[in-house]
Amino acid sequence: MKKLLTEFIGTFFLVLTLTLCLMSKTAMTPLAVGAMYMVMIFAGGHISGGHFNPAVTIAVFLRGKCSVSDVPSYILTQFLAAGVAGLVSSTFLMNVGTPIEIGSKVPQCMVGELLGTFALVFVVLNVATAKDTMGNSFYGLAIGLCWTAGSFAMNSISGGLFNPAAALGNSVAGLNHFSDIWIYIIGQIIGAAAAAYVFLYINGKD
Amino acid sequence: MKKLLTEFIGTFFLVLTLTLCLMSKTAMTPLAVGAMYMVMIFAGGHISGGHFNPAVTIAVFLRGKCSVSDVPSYILTQFLAAGVAGLVSSTFLMNVGTPIEIGSKVPQCMVGELLGTFALVFVVLNVATAKDTMGNSFYGLAIGLCWTAGSFAMNSISGGLFNPAAALGNSVAGLNHFSDIWIYIIGQIIGAAAAAYVFLYINGKD
Amino acid sequence: MKKLLTEFIGTFFLVLTLTLCLMSKTAMTPLAVGAMYMVMIFAGGHISGGHFNPAVTIAVFLRGKCSVSDVPSYILTQFLAAGVAGLVSSTFLMNVGTPIEIGSKVPQCMVGELLGTFALVFVVLNVATAKDTMGNSFYGLAIGLCWTAGSFAMNSISGGLFNPAAALGNSVAGLNHFSDIWIYIIGQIIGAAAAAYVFLYINGKD
Amino acid sequence: MKKLLTEFIGTFFLVLTLTLCLMSKTAMTPLAVGAMYMVMIFAGGHISGGHFNPAVTIAVFLRGKCSVSDVPSYILTQFLAAGVAGLVSSTFLMNVGTPIEIGSKVPQCMVGELLGTFALVFVVLNVATAKDTMGNSFYGLAIGLCWTAGSFAMNSISGGLFNPAAALGNSVAGLNHFSDIWIYIIGQIIGAAAAAYVFLYINGKD
Repeated sequence: MKKLLTEFIGTFFLVLTLTLCLMSKTAMTPLAVGAMYMVMIFAGGHISGGHFNPAVTIAVFLRGKCSVSDVPSYILTQFLAAGVAGLVSSTFLMNVGTPIEIGSKVPQCMVGELLGTFALVFVVLNVATAKDTMGNSFYGLAIGLCWTAGSFAMNSISGGLFNPAAALGNSVAGLNHFSDIWIYIIGQIIGAAAAAYVFLYINGKD
Repeated sequence: MKKLLTEFIGTFFLVLTLTLCLMSKTAMTPLAVGAMYMVMIFAGGHISGGHFNPAVTIAVFLRGKCSVSDVPSYILTQFLAAGVAGLVSSTFLMNVGTPIEIGSKVPQCMVGELLGTFALVFVVLNVATAKDTMGNSFYGLAIGLCWTAGSFAMNSISGGLFNPAAALGNSVAGLNHFSDIWIYIIGQIIGAAAAAYVFLYINGKD
Repeated sequence: MKKLLTEFIGTFFLVLTLTLCLMSKTAMTPLAVGAMYMVMIFAGGHISGGHFNPAVTIAVFLRGKCSVSDVPSYILTQFLAAGVAGLVSSTFLMNVGTPIEIGSKVPQCMVGELLGTFALVFVVLNVATAKDTMGNSFYGLAIGLCWTAGSFAMNSISGGLFNPAAALGNSVAGLNHFSDIWIYIIGQIIGAAAAAYVFLYINGKD
Repeated sequence: MKKLLTEFIGTFFLVLTLTLCLMSKTAMTPLAVGAMYMVMIFAGGHISGGHFNPAVTIAVFLRGKCSVSDVPSYILTQFLAAGVAGLVSSTFLMNVGTPIEIGSKVPQCMVGELLGTFALVFVVLNVATAKDTMGNSFYGLAIGLCWTAGSFAMNSISGGLFNPAAALGNSVAGLNHFSDIWIYIIGQIIGAAAAAYVFLYINGKD
């Protein structure tokens, strides 16, 4: 329960920052959101592992550092928190969002999300679950700014979300079409699983 | 006395950076102010705890890591430092500030400050007072950049202050109306107290 | 093989971020690319050393911390990954790039790359291979943000690449002329070798 | 000699980044320069202490952590490196700089530099010379980003240099009038000395 509350808080503020920054159209959105991701990992990592992202939860499970019984409750909590964040942003705080139009660029969008999520999960597993980097003080910085860098790169392609819960939160807030969510989720899950298997090939089970 | 001097210095430079950046209308204000907050925590944390924010002092007290006798003097010092910083910015250095007009958006502003302060205090308590994260080298980075991320998110709603002393400093510098300070302070105190209780529920007294 | 896979992944995402950001013409390109460089070093450093840059591989070899048998395979892998990244950016994802016109500014461009690479390699060797800084948690941050700072400085001169593989990736993506690559590579190799010898003079072999 | 070479390299790249960024008029100058300052401290701190700034050298001497015999050679080296950097920027690489016009704002400029240098030196002494913070991995980050934050704040007042060598380098590069250097140096030395005495009052000799 304490783990789920922590996942709720982290995911909520991550998606709240994302949706509010996108609504204000600030050029610094990737930096702001990556910073919130970073600080929530530093704050909540010691409690819940600091996933805040269903793709990360799946990858950490594949890597063997998240028990199978935690997976559904983590993912449900992350989607719930993201939905609430999208709702708070749109109905209460600002209520202005222009959805990204993907149109005929479905393959580009899916591959962009796949690549960005691969990078993110590769970094997560190496800085937060590898034996060689244990005890470091940079795990949150590395993960948060990987999101930032990837999101700057994929910004004009897919928006750069790398997180199924963020895709839901954005849709609730009117920043993505609900009908496009599958593009994000499929790309992200493939990217996350691929990164987990690459990590296991390189680092071994332990 | 040495603690109070440290709180004065940290809060003074925090609010000075805030008011001067707002006066120059740089788009990087949240980054600059969060950076100053971060470095003052790294510099002064080992002396006074590095609060620089009445909402943080109240939350650290509720969490049981600030003696009741320190609370009034810390808060008074923080408000004094913020007032002096606002005065130095406006009367001596630049003297140009346009106040944020909140108008009918009082609930949005209050909830925005509540949420941002909740995130900030949740991060402060977890990275600087929790047993599991003791001895880390990231506490200042996490706290400073939580302010940055939250301030980018709430920028177009309330300005994103998350600090009663900053609300006072801004008012002195003509960047907020004095008549709006209560909106900030109420939202911030509620957010800080809520975060302290959530922290205690999750982590326990120790 | 695991080292080379790690070098491939890191270099691929580094050059992918570079080329995509340049194509989108974001003013934050140096920050985004430096951030990706940083996080890939934090993620892959414990496996391959986290070079992702032929100039770094040569310098680490000169400093005596990379076996001679690793040098050709590392460099080949880095160029391959950069070429693939340039191809993915240009043919699949965006396909819009305006090449930098160096024209008569060949000496400026070469010296700019020489200086930026000197700074980068000086930082790499000191934070990642020196005895006095062993066990630190900042090596990735220092190296990534050295790239960022140098690239902001040299942006209007050479684009600020400091990495022969990035020069190749940019050329594949249509962001540099193939006929200009030699200017980059010569400047970068001289800068890297000079930094390695200065490091050895200052720090000694160990 | 090895210390002086390190001070030369660090100061050279610090001032080169400053002058080139100012010439390109990028809005991110304070971030780029603070980043270069940070990484040179992480790289050179273990050799020379990583001052790269005469005001810092004076303050570290006053605090008792720099031998009197090092002071003149350090300061001379820093000014020399800054002059060379200004020359390289202006005559070789770009040759375009518009000097800041201080006009009648001499007191504002001097106080702005005094305050910014006070903050910088207060941070330097606390994160790099205090017993309580020994062994941390954030000293370079704290010092570099203190410069960044202060420079964003003082940007429209004095340019935000907080470093006598930078004032010289800027003047050589045509970004400050030589006749204004005294304003910078006086403000900076007073700020540095004041911060050293405040540090000694708060922390004691050790």
